[in-house]
Amino acid sequence: MNIVLLNPEIPYNTGNIGRSCVLTNTSLHLIKPMGFSLDEKQVKRAGLDYWNSVDLHTWDSLEELIKANPDSNFYFATTKTKKKYSDVKYEKNDFIVFGPESRGVPEEILEANKENCITIPMIKMGRSLNLSNSAAIILYEALRQTGFDF
Amino acid sequence: MNIVLLNPEIPYNTGNIGRSCVLTNTSLHLIKPMGFSLDEKQVKRAGLDYWNSVDLHTWDSLEELIKANPDSNFYFATTKTKKKYSDVKYEKNDFIVFGPESRGVPEEILEANKENCITIPMIKMGRSLNLSNSAAIILYEALRQTGFDF
Repeated sequence: MNIVLLNPEIPYNTGNIGRSCVLTNTSLHLIKPMGFSLDEKQVKRAGLDYWNSVDLHTWDSLEELIKANPDSNFYFATTKTKKKYSDVKYEKNDFIVFGPESRGVPEEILEANKENCITIPMIKMGRSLNLSNSAAIILYEALRQTGFDF
Repeated sequence: MNIVLLNPEIPYNTGNIGRSCVLTNTSLHLIKPMGFSLDEKQVKRAGLDYWNSVDLHTWDSLEELIKANPDSNFYFATTKTKKKYSDVKYEKNDFIVFGPESRGVPEEILEANKENCITIPMIKMGRSLNLSNSAAIILYEALRQTGFDF
C-alpha cells in the first residue's frame, strides 16, 4: 500500500504516519513543499527508531507521482465528499492521498478526481480528525480488505 | 462506543484520542494514575477546542469501571494475542481498553480476559503503533461494523 502526504505541515504527524508505514510495509510518499525539513529532530523523535526504516519517496509534485504510477488507483481523503472510505474496494498497491493539515486536499484536485474522493464519517463540527489518525484508519481498512498481507 | 485508557502517560496521545471520541460521540474513560494532570496545557493543545466537548469519565481503577458496567463487553488491545481486532463482532456500547504507552495492558489483566484480547496486525519488530493511532484504528473498525451510527 502507499500513503501520500501532499505538502505536510506538522513533522510529528509525518513521523507518526511513517511509523504506521514501517509496521505495515507501506511506502510513504511526501510531496513538496513541506512545512519542515526531513532531518528535523521532531520527525525523528515522532518516528522514533522507525524513521530510518521508512520506505520514503519525495516528489516535486503530485502530477509527477501520478505520472510515475499510471496504472495505480489514487484515492483522495477529504471531508468534502459523502463516499465513505470503507465503501471502496482497495487493491494492494493503491495510493491514498492526504492534504496538508490546515486545509486538506485542494478543491481543484478533488474536482478532477471526484469518483476517487473518500471520507471518514464523523459528526459535523466543521473540523476533522488528526492527520496521522486519519491515515491510520484508512490504511488499516485497506489492509483489512486485502487480508493484512504484508 | 467507549474508549478506555488505562494509566495513560503521554498527554498528546490522550488529547488526540479525545478528539477522535468527540467526533464520533464516543465516551472516553481514563483510569488513574495517569502520567499527567487533566488541565495540563498539552492535553488541551492536542485536543484543540475539542477537549471541553469530550464525554470524559475518570476512574480510580479498571475494576471500578467494569463493576459499573456489568453487562458490557470489554476488549483489551495488546500485541500479545493472535486474535485480530477485525475478527471481533462489536456492539454499540462496547468498551475498548488500551494500556499505558510504555508497557501496554498488564499481563494479569490479559490473562484474566484471554477471550477478549485483540491485536492490530503489524510486522514483527518488537514495537507497536502510536497509541492514538491504535485507538483510532480499532474505534473506527467498531464504528464501521455498527454502521457509523453516531
